Parts: sequence; structure tokens; C-alpha cells
Amino acid sequence: MARRPGRNFLFVPGPTNLPDRVLRSMAVSMEDHRSPAFPQLTLPLFEGMKKVFKTKDGTVFIFPSSGTGGWEAALTNTLAPGDKVLTARFGQFSHLWTDMAQRLGLDVEIQEEEWGTGAHEEKIEEALRADKAHEIKAVMVVHNETATGVTSNIGAIRKAIDAAGHPALLFVDSVSGLGSIDFRFDEWGVDCAVSGSQKGLMLPAGLGFVCVSPKALNVRKNAKLNKVYFDFDDHLKQNPAGYFPYTPALPLLYGLKEALACLEDEGFDNVLRRHHVLAEGTRAAVKAWGLKLCAKSPRWHSDTVSAILAPEGVDAAKIISTAYNRYNLALGAGLSKVAGKVFRIGHLGDLNELMLLGAIAGTEMALLDNGVKIEAGSGVAAAAQYFRQNPIEAQAATPKAA
Amino acid sequence: MARRPGRNFLFVPGPTNLPDRVLRSMAVSMEDHRSPAFPQLTLPLFEGMKKVFKTKDGTVFIFPSSGTGGWEAALTNTLAPGDKVLTARFGQFSHLWTDMAQRLGLDVEIQEEEWGTGAHEEKIEEALRADKAHEIKAVMVVHNETATGVTSNIGAIRKAIDAAGHPALLFVDSVSGLGSIDFRFDEWGVDCAVSGSQKGLMLPAGLGFVCVSPKALNVRKNAKLNKVYFDFDDHLKQNPAGYFPYTPALPLLYGLKEALACLEDEGFDNVLRRHHVLAEGTRAAVKAWGLKLCAKSPRWHSDTVSAILAPEGVDAAKIISTAYNRYNLALGAGLSKVAGKVFRIGHLGDLNELMLLGAIAGTEMALLDNGVKIEAGSGVAAAAQYFRQNPIEAQAATPKAA
Amino acid sequence: MARRPGRNFLFVPGPTNLPDRVLRSMAVSMEDHRSPAFPQLTLPLFEGMKKVFKTKDGTVFIFPSSGTGGWEAALTNTLAPGDKVLTARFGQFSHLWTDMAQRLGLDVEIQEEEWGTGAHEEKIEEALRADKAHEIKAVMVVHNETATGVTSNIGAIRKAIDAAGHPALLFVDSVSGLGSIDFRFDEWGVDCAVSGSQKGLMLPAGLGFVCVSPKALNVRKNAKLNKVYFDFDDHLKQNPAGYFPYTPALPLLYGLKEALACLEDEGFDNVLRRHHVLAEGTRAAVKAWGLKLCAKSPRWHSDTVSAILAPEGVDAAKIISTAYNRYNLALGAGLSKVAGKVFRIGHLGDLNELMLLGAIAGTEMALLDNGVKIEAGSGVAAAAQYFRQNPIEAQAATPKAA
Amino acid sequence: MARRPGRNFLFVPGPTNLPDRVLRSMAVSMEDHRSPAFPQLTLPLFEGMKKVFKTKDGTVFIFPSSGTGGWEAALTNTLAPGDKVLTARFGQFSHLWTDMAQRLGLDVEIQEEEWGTGAHEEKIEEALRADKAHEIKAVMVVHNETATGVTSNIGAIRKAIDAAGHPALLFVDSVSGLGSIDFRFDEWGVDCAVSGSQKGLMLPAGLGFVCVSPKALNVRKNAKLNKVYFDFDDHLKQNPAGYFPYTPALPLLYGLKEALACLEDEGFDNVLRRHHVLAEGTRAAVKAWGLKLCAKSPRWHSDTVSAILAPEGVDAAKIISTAYNRYNLALGAGLSKVAGKVFRIGHLGDLNELMLLGAIAGTEMALLDNGVKIEAGSGVAAAAQYFRQNPIEAQAATPKAA
Repeated sequence: MARRPGRNFLFVPGPTNLPDRVLRSMAVSMEDHRSPAFPQLTLPLFEGMKKVFKTKDGTVFIFPSSGTGGWEAALTNTLAPGDKVLTARFGQFSHLWTDMAQRLGLDVEIQEEEWGTGAHEEKIEEALRADKAHEIKAVMVVHNETATGVTSNIGAIRKAIDAAGHPALLFVDSVSGLGSIDFRFDEWGVDCAVSGSQKGLMLPAGLGFVCVSPKALNVRKNAKLNKVYFDFDDHLKQNPAGYFPYTPALPLLYGLKEALACLEDEGFDNVLRRHHVLAEGTRAAVKAWGLKLCAKSPRWHSDTVSAILAPEGVDAAKIISTAYNRYNLALGAGLSKVAGKVFRIGHLGDLNELMLLGAIAGTEMALLDNGVKIEAGSGVAAAAQYFRQNPIEAQAATPKAA
Repeated sequence: MARRPGRNFLFVPGPTNLPDRVLRSMAVSMEDHRSPAFPQLTLPLFEGMKKVFKTKDGTVFIFPSSGTGGWEAALTNTLAPGDKVLTARFGQFSHLWTDMAQRLGLDVEIQEEEWGTGAHEEKIEEALRADKAHEIKAVMVVHNETATGVTSNIGAIRKAIDAAGHPALLFVDSVSGLGSIDFRFDEWGVDCAVSGSQKGLMLPAGLGFVCVSPKALNVRKNAKLNKVYFDFDDHLKQNPAGYFPYTPALPLLYGLKEALACLEDEGFDNVLRRHHVLAEGTRAAVKAWGLKLCAKSPRWHSDTVSAILAPEGVDAAKIISTAYNRYNLALGAGLSKVAGKVFRIGHLGDLNELMLLGAIAGTEMALLDNGVKIEAGSGVAAAAQYFRQNPIEAQAATPKAA
Repeated sequence: MARRPGRNFLFVPGPTNLPDRVLRSMAVSMEDHRSPAFPQLTLPLFEGMKKVFKTKDGTVFIFPSSGTGGWEAALTNTLAPGDKVLTARFGQFSHLWTDMAQRLGLDVEIQEEEWGTGAHEEKIEEALRADKAHEIKAVMVVHNETATGVTSNIGAIRKAIDAAGHPALLFVDSVSGLGSIDFRFDEWGVDCAVSGSQKGLMLPAGLGFVCVSPKALNVRKNAKLNKVYFDFDDHLKQNPAGYFPYTPALPLLYGLKEALACLEDEGFDNVLRRHHVLAEGTRAAVKAWGLKLCAKSPRWHSDTVSAILAPEGVDAAKIISTAYNRYNLALGAGLSKVAGKVFRIGHLGDLNELMLLGAIAGTEMALLDNGVKIEAGSGVAAAAQYFRQNPIEAQAATPKAA
Repeated sequence: MARRPGRNFLFVPGPTNLPDRVLRSMAVSMEDHRSPAFPQLTLPLFEGMKKVFKTKDGTVFIFPSSGTGGWEAALTNTLAPGDKVLTARFGQFSHLWTDMAQRLGLDVEIQEEEWGTGAHEEKIEEALRADKAHEIKAVMVVHNETATGVTSNIGAIRKAIDAAGHPALLFVDSVSGLGSIDFRFDEWGVDCAVSGSQKGLMLPAGLGFVCVSPKALNVRKNAKLNKVYFDFDDHLKQNPAGYFPYTPALPLLYGLKEALACLEDEGFDNVLRRHHVLAEGTRAAVKAWGLKLCAKSPRWHSDTVSAILAPEGVDAAKIISTAYNRYNLALGAGLSKVAGKVFRIGHLGDLNELMLLGAIAGTEMALLDNGVKIEAGSGVAAAAQYFRQNPIEAQAATPKAA
């Protein structure tokens, strides 16, 4: 079997690249998850995740699942069959969460938005104002739509809900946002926030996180949707003492401990700023190529993933295939409506300028190989120029050992 | 912080000890789970698990979850609210699965059996014969009750169902059995078999497996219990091509590949025989100590875990605590009804004689420290005697490098 | 290829068992060993090793070599061809070091001691007194003779040298002693101490350590033995700034950092005490079996390895072979003069009671399989009894997570 | 402590980037290096290294040392004090080997060559012809001078020796060549070839290799230079059975096994071609920048490292420092004579186009930051252009999983 030399350039928007120290931290022997020592590992994880969610009053749940499991936990623990929810749909992931709500038997009012835009707070406010009877139990929003590279303004949505004087819960999917772009559970009045381990948290997939407000926790007696695996109650009986209702995915817990330490060591604000710088560099490259983002305007720009429109007449799938097969570069594909029309560069997780420049260089090569008329080196030059002016490592004078 | 020198002796009945090569195999960089190369990893895993389940016609599902998730998948994909199921309850895990069935809204007929015994095939036959209207949709049995060290005879239960001429599905939890004791999906006519990664498969927790017969797959249109995360349909759309409906827990997939290779390299029959030998050695030790198993008779003996009754007046929890705190030996606690009455020695997974003898020696020390009158060295001598006469490594003449 | 299940019981006296955290710490990406950050890794290693050697004034050298390389570094940096040295020979390793001295062209005066005894300070004193002309430049002693399980009294030898009023340097091989049994470079007036990474330091082989007194460093201008790789001078030019004269064995440096942290976390005095307790337990087992140590009297008992005499008429090699082939237990072989006559149990490194009891149980089985008349379980019982009365983990009340 | 996000770009010419599978392979538990199973690991390593050296008759020695140790082994096992050797000096490493020969007491005739050129076969022939008495025992040549990025023509040197009809041995340092550029031990009539693990073999430093011809092995009786650690004889007694005279560096042996498998899987010819392509791309970038290589002409171009001259008035050390501190890019420094004048890009080991393009982009940024007038993106564009026309992965159609 032919071996592919060198590193794979992983630029799908999750799973993301792992820091070496996180990878190492997971190579642990198994242990008794009911031992008296176990809570020393687990209790700080809940506290650490609360910091990441920026919450004091929220309760964090950690499930051995993907983020999809977190979606299901959020809905089944708070709602009953037939309950009405309001969603905005503008990409594959907002579609899938909407679809899940329907399949779970909820009555889903969908605001269809153009792909490339996001949730429109003014329309949400309007819908809530129209709901005089307060039948809408929850508003479901995808913070960062991974399929189109679009970030919605959760803080503005909270204000819209409040302006409408509506008691609906605010449910947010921040699977591809949390840990990479600004998220403020308490300040934004989020009631259920869902995330996963394989994006900004720089871990493999396998942990689903849900952060829940006291208000949302409170309504769970009325949550008649069936669930056991994802039942908050079973976790609430065990988590405060540092245990879980079933065997936890041990390596990922050790990995989470280390990943949280990584965020702390870099400085959480630095992490967010770095993602912004890397995203701006990517966007500079796209502009230099003369290509366009799927995101319709800067308002919607995502700092964790850029979905780029292939020029007319060029199959984006071929660009992705060339990148993968010739240059060992994994780009994200266009999904559903935008299949064949966009390719995506994920720029989140444990990433720096040179990794991204390598990926941008590889993208240029794949574009050129597919006949796209761009100037060779132009994207790299534009991104590099931006990076030189906006250094990530301000502390450059005294570099430290890993 | 004080460091505990040396290895922890992990003798809870799961998670189990990992082979070094399995641990190594999971230290992988992340990759695109939608790449054209990905199915080369995943497709053989489904085939490999079919061999472990001993099935040709069954369909294997791999969920990023614990075994509890597998329980839920089995029930929600095959049953509707109000459906009647028959269960036998004789330990904490058969209790929990029964409890899940009730919480999911099923109508559960429970055969309460004495803890220390298991499912009685004759009673199951009787109940099915009595169910003239064939209201019972499924019989749920725990193959190996981890709480009491009891193995039920699944083959006999199949015969009982057939003898009753009843069309009920046969659902089996073999979380702590599969990969360690005999399991025959096809031959025993099992319809849904549930297992997890952290027992006989020598992996961390984090993967739930369900093997499903064509008959069980067929009824899923009528399965009105809500589910999305565990919905077979989403997996059936993706698995045949080697993909998953959401981001899979990558390291565990690589680990599973290696764990399956381990089973193959040792020889699956050798694996089963080894578990029997280690269990017999453990039972010889228990006998030498003058103690009794929770399992009421050899008919119920489990080859993966022995639950041992503490003598009258001795708190089993103290034995466990001494073992852990003084000797770095993790024994399984008594759960629920048998809390404080039994301690458990798990003897499954990647284990050999000397590991077990170390644990038996540690158990002796903890027993003596807690005032139990046993002869020092007696358990070790009895087990060692058995092991000398029943060597695990027949091929000893030509040892191979790891 | 047949797979051997479970862990290998590694009880040769080195390489020793590695703590998981040390193993993890070495899985590092390569880096520039001339970077400005590199000294942050390396400088504390020299300081840490000075603590282990118990020296303030000594200079530590770290070579990418085995301990044998350390031997050569010590001799070639301090002596000239034809220089006279005094050695005591009483086992394979004291033989090999003596042999090296001869092959390097030194004039070696050998005190042949009975195997099972060690260096006799009174004889050394005598020889030095007889050397009126002070021709003897150095006394070479093996602190812990790994082949016979014999520890010599280095402090007493220093006193003997002083009592003789002789200026000879004191060279000590503590390859299998350092980090496990008491060693005091400054207090004992050692001039060159040699060790390796794969024993008490709980690392793989690959690092040789030499600790050198100012006096020994001083004579190196007269050291006419040729050397470059092991030349102290090249290291002295680079080490103070945290660099090495050639590419260092990076993973082992990271491993050393973690191993030093392990010693610190356990507490260095606790480490030494633990080795004593484990050794005493082993000796209790040997006594219970009715067998004898190679070490002639308690004066010579080594706390890191026990060499045990096979009974008359039994080939020790067969005991070792049975242990390895049937029970996956690696015992140390008899070397040279004692080949076939002794087998050795190494009890140093990252070890605890249950690991050792597993090995003792395995040794019992191998003895019985080879027809040695011992009482089954007697050794385990005797050792366990000792361990119960001499607990290693006094801090048992509050165990900590790994 | 501030954490540096993302991967370090390691472009010093060794140690090189490790493949993940090699890194994983070294995370092994320790084992008895005298066990009957051990030769199954070690014997194929000697065979595998013979393939890499391209020899049938040569004998390979594996030392726990750096390449410097290999130098010393080659000299001390074949020569006597005062023996005359001929060397060519044209960079820091040819200087160091020459220096070693002098310090070991050899009579060294040095051909000083301009840095940026290499060994001149015609001058070697001339010197040998002049040595009518055949006093020159060996010709020492550095195949690939890492300091200046210069490759000498070993085959031509062999022809020169033969043309002169001189019996001198041919000693070659291929530390930074072997495994990356063409090397033919038998065909070129090399007598001692020295290499190390941390370059083309994609391992950490810690193993020194010496490949020795029957002729060179033969003269070792006359080799009066003292040595024990590096004595071929001790190894010849143990290696044929798969053992070593002292404890080997176990993880590196497992790593070597995997690294050899990597070379095999990629195809050795593909490995060499890949290094050529990567080097050509680098040189295209240098040309696009308007900079010059230290290597005086294409004749001397090294395919494993490019030493690049900083423009007049620019301190190369500052370029390196900027690259490291701002962009986490490790470039090689200028050594000795060329300190401050050159910076080096190593392009050997487990490397592909995008990794190198990232490094080239980073070098551009560091050049610009230091006021060097280059066109941004020009180097990346030139290299990418070359890579597009000279694809490394011809087998791109069917990529395989790692």
C-alpha cells in the first residue's frame, strides 16, 4: 500500500487538529470510574466547561456522544410532543437540527433564510410578537452554520426575544463556535447551548456538551419526550459528586482536562483573537483570488470556517478531490443545496499562520489544476501580508518550550 | 501530591485493561471522516464485529455512546409506546434495562428472579405460552449480569421461545459477555444484541454496538418511540458506504481495528478458553478462602466476573476500600440490593494468570486487614494450582514478540 | 502469530517498568535542539539529576548512551594509558567494568571477591596503604552488583580511602542503584558516579549519566585516553547554556523531566523506603520457599535485585524459561560464573506490592513446574504478610488520581 | 506560560518530522532484551538497514548514540594512533569529523575546499597517487555537508581511488544523506558508512549506524585506538543472534522497525524522488526571491538541505530568529564560518509539498520583516508551480488510509 508522506493538512471545519499534548494526554490506562479518586479528574471539567461557556448559573452536561446527541438532549429534556418551536434554517446543520425537532414530534415553525445569511433577529422578534398565546416554547438557532460559514448574532436574538416580551427558551447550537468565537451563555441569556468536542475544544469527536440555564432545567418535569441515555436527571444524580450514570469515555475526559489547560495557557481572549486573525487572512486570500464567500456580507462572516464559491462552470467537488488526492489537503465539501458549488476551509482549533498558509497554497494549486484563473501565490501573499501586520504571537520576544 | 507507584490493578468488570498495542493504535491525528480513504478503515470494522457476534445475516451498528445507548437504540428502533415486553430481573443491570423500558413507555412484564440466579428459560416459555394473543413483542435478557456474576443461557431461551411457538423478538444485553464468553447471534436466534467497547473488546468506553436481525430490522417502521441520535435509518443510509451520520469517535475506531486484530491473533476460541480458565482459578481461590459466590450454583457462574459474598458481619465496602487505598487494587462494589454484601473481581479483557494472581493476593490482604479469617496464600495457591494444570499458553514453546 | 494476552511481568533488574506518565511524556514531536526555548527543557534536568545524586558541587553529564558509555566516559576523561586503578570484582558487572579498564590500557589491580560478597573496604584500605607511591589513581567500585544482588558500602569505602590517607579518586558504578537505594555523592566523597536511565530512573535505556567531582574534573587535562564522543570538554562548552555538542535523544530528555517529577511526587525518601520494603518482601518469600540468596549475608543484600540460588540439581535457566514461556514472567538469568545456578528477581523501578506478588506467584509456579519442592502459596503469603505490616502507602486515607 | 498554538514548523536539517505511525510505534512498555523473543524484533532491523545502505556484504552496527558516535566507531575500529587519513573539509560537519580524527591521534591530511563546494575527486586522486608508500589508510568524506547544503559525489571518489590504484579505505559520513538521497554502499565501494537516526530515517536522535565492508572489518585487529563502547567485536559476538552487548534503546528499535516499513510502503525510489522534487521546489523559491544558495553550482546541490545566503547587510541570524519567534518556524542557522551569513531550510524526512510551502511562506514573511526586498508570494508561487508539474503522488487516483 502506498504511503502518503508528510502530514495530512486537515482543513475541514471539524474534527480539528489536536495539540500534541492533548493527544498524549489521552493515552491513559483504564481505571475505575467509581473510585474515590475519580472526581478529582471530573469535577474540574465541569467547572472548566462553565468558564468556556461563560456561565455562572448554567449547568453543564457531558455526554459520551457527538454534538448531535447534545441537540437531542437539549430538546428531549425540555419539551413535550407537539410543543411548538421556532427555528431559522439557512444551511445543512440548521436543517438537520430542525429535522430532528420534527422527527421528535415537535411542531416546528421554520424561518427559511437564504443560505449565506443566518438567523434574522428582527424576524424572530416579529414571529414572537405574533405568538400572543406564547405557544412557542423555544427558539432554536445555530450560532455558527458550518455548511455556509455564517455566524448569527445570538446576543441580538436574545434582545429580540426580550423586546417581544416572550418567555420562549433560547436554544443555541454552538458546535462549531464554542471555544473559537465569542460565546456568552449568561450575558446572552442562552437557555440550552449545545457543543461537541471535535471543534474549538481540539479533541476527537465523542463528547457532547449541553449547558443549561436554571429556567430550562426547571421545565424538565414537563418534558414528555422519551429519553434515558440523554436524561438530565440521571446525570444530575451523579455529576455533582463527580460521577456519571454510565461508563464515561475516559480518554476524552483526560483529553478535555488538557484541552482546557491549553485554552487557559494561550489565554482565552488570545484564542478568540487568533481565530479572527486566521479568518481574516483566509478572507484576504479569497479576495486576492477574485472569488466570493458563500456568506453574503461581512455581517455573516464566520471566524471558524469559510465557505468559498467555486467560479461558474467549475465543480467545487473536483477542487476538493484534487486537493485531497494530489496535495493531501482535506477541504470541506459543499453540503446539500450548495454541493458542488462551494468548498470550505475550516480555520479553527489548534492552528497557526503557517499551517493555514500551507493550506492556502494547496488550495491555490488545486484551483489552478482545475482551470480556475487565479494568480499563483496571490492568496498566500495576501494572507501573509495580513498576518505580518496582525501578529498572533505578541509575546514573541520570549518563546516558551512546548 | 503523593504519587502512587506502580500499576493500578484494575479488576472491576469493565472498563478492562487495554493491550498496549490498542492504546498505541488510538493515538491518531484527526482526519476527514468524509474522505474517500475513510471507508478503508470503517468497512472492515463492521465485518469484524459480525464475526465477534457470530452472525452472517445480522446488521451491526456502531454508536458513539456507552452500552446504555445501545440498550436505547435496540428498544427505540423496534418498539412503539405501550408495546409489551417481557424481562427477567436479577441484578442491577437487568434492573436498569428494565427501568429504561418502563421509562420509554413500554408495558414491561417483569420476572423477578432471585439475585444470584438468572433468566429462567422455563418461566419464559410459560409466560409466552400464556400470551395467546402474542402481545409480548420482545423478550429482554441480560446475558451476563455484571452485578452478581451470573450468566444466563441464551440458547436455551431461544429454544423456550420456539417451544412456545411465540413470535416475540429476543433482545440480549451482552455488554459484559461479548468477546469474553460464548455468544452466537445467528445460532441462538438473537434479534437485537447490545454490547459496549469497554469490556471484552479491550477498549475504552465510548462505543455502543447493536447487532440486529433481519426480522428486527423489519419491524422498525412500526417503532414509534422517538429517536434520532440512535435511529438505525440514518446509519443504514451511511454505513454501507463506510460513513456515519455524524462525526464518529475516531480514536476508538482505530482502537477497534486493533482490538479485533488482537482477538484474531490470540484466536477467538483461545480467548474464550482463557476467560474460562481465569474464572475457574478465581473460583478456586474463593473456595480456598471458604467464601461463597453470589451466583447460587455453577449453572449461573459467569466467566467474566465473580461476585463474592463477604462473610457475615463484614462490610464488603470496607474490603473494597482497603484494597483500593492500601494496595492500589480496584475491585467492583456491590450494587443496589447487594451493596455492602458482595465485592466483585472482574476477570475479563486483556488479562493473564499473573495479573489475576496479583489481584487475588491483594484481595487476600484486604480480607485479612478487615479481619476475615482466611489462610494467607491459600487463594493464590489454589488458583495457581489450577493454572498450572490448565495452561493458557499451549503454544508456549515458541513465544512471539509483542 | 499467537498473541500473548495481558501484561508481561518484567522482573529483570532493568530495564524496569515505566510509569504511564513517563511513557506518555516521551511521545513528542521533534524540535530544534538549538532553539532559544530548548534550555527551558534541559537546564532543570541537570539540576534534577544533581538532586538524585545528592550533590551540590558535582557536575552532571548526560550522554546519549547506555550506562556502559558512562563507564567509558568516567575512565577516559580522568585517566591516562598505563595509569593504575584498583577494582574489586565479584560479579558480571564489576567484571565488565574491570575488563573495560584493562582494554582501555589501564593497569588494573583487581581484588577478587567471592561472588555473593562485594567490595571489602578493609582490603581496599590495605591496598591503598601499601601503595606508598600513590600510583593508584582511582578506586573503581560497583555500588550494586546486579548479577549477584549485592550492595557494597560506598560510604565505608570512602572512609577507608581517607583512613589510608590516599589521594585516589573514588569511581562508583551505581547503574542499578541510583534512584532506588541510598546514594550520596557529596557525603560519600564520590569522584565519578555512573548511572543509566533504565533502572531506578524508570526510563528506557539510552541515557548514560556521569556525576563528576571538582577534583575529578580537574585532572582531566592529564587524561590522555582518547575520546571524543564522551569528552567532558565538549559538553562543558555547551551544557551550561542548556545545549549539547551533538543531537540529543529528545524523547528521553522529556522522559527524564517526567521521571524526575515522579520521584519528587512520590517523595525521594518514600521511593527508597519502598524499594526496601519490596526487597524485604522478596527475601521473605525466598526464605519461605527454603531457598537461599546468592548474597552471602544481610550485609550484602541488595534492595533492587535478589539473585536466588536454584536448589542442587535444578537448572536455573529452566526455571527462567518456564516463567517466561508459560507465565509471561521475565526473570533475570544467572550470568557468567553463576549461569544456570541463579535466577534473579529485579525489584526496582515503578513497582508496587501487587506487581511483585504476581511475580512471586509466577516464580512459585515455575519452581513447582521444575520439580522444586516448595509449598504452593508460601512465598506469596510470606511477602504479603510483610507488606501488610509495612505498608508502602501510609497516606492511604486520601488517594490521589494519577 | 504562553502556549504557542498549532504545530511548530520544523525545518532544521535534522532532527526531522516523524510520521505519526513512527511516533506511536515507540510508545512501548519495556521488555527483557535477553528474552528468546527479542531477536524477532532485532534481526530484521539489521537486514532492513542493509537494504537502506544498499549492501549485501556489509555488516551493519547499531549503536545507542548519535551519528557522532558512529564517526568514532568507524575510526577507532579500523585505525591505529598515528595512522594517516585524508579528509576534505568544506563545512562544519566535515570540519568536526576531521577534528575528531585529529583528537583521536590520527595524522590527518586535510584538503581544504571552498565552503559551498565539496570533496573534489580529482584532488583526492592526485593525493593518493602522490602517496606512493600507501601511508594513507583511509579517505574520509562527508557525503552531504549539512552546514552548506552540499553533496559530494561518492561514486566518483571511489573511481578516483581505484584510478590511483590506492588501497585506502573509503569512509563516508552520510548522516544527513542516507534514506533521503541516493547511497550505494556496495556499488560505490564504501568501506565504512556512518549515519544517524534523526534525518532521513525519520526517528529521534539516539541511534548511530555504521555499515562496514569485509575489508574494513578485516583490518580491525590492527586498530589500536582504544574503545570499548563502540567496539565492533563486542557487537559481533551478540548481533548475529539478535542481541546487543549492553541494554539497547528499545523504543528506537521499535521506531526503526516502523520507519523501515514506512520507507518500504512509500517505495524507496519514491522517497528519493520526493526529496529531489522538494529540493527543486525550494531552489525555485530561492531563485524567485533573487537570493543565492551557499552551494556554488548545481553540481553541489543537496536534495536534503538548502543553505541560503542572506543578502549583503542582512544578518541571517535575525531572519532565523524572526521565523522562530513570530511564525513558529525553525530554520537552520549558519554554523562557524557562515554564521550570520546563511540560513538553512532542511527538506528531508517525512515531508510533503504543503508542509514545505508553509515553511517557504514563513521564510518569506521573516525575510520581509527583516527588510529583505522580495516579492511577497513569489517563492511560494515558484515552488508550487514546480510541484504542480512534478507531482509527488503519482498514485493519486487511489489514496489510501494512514
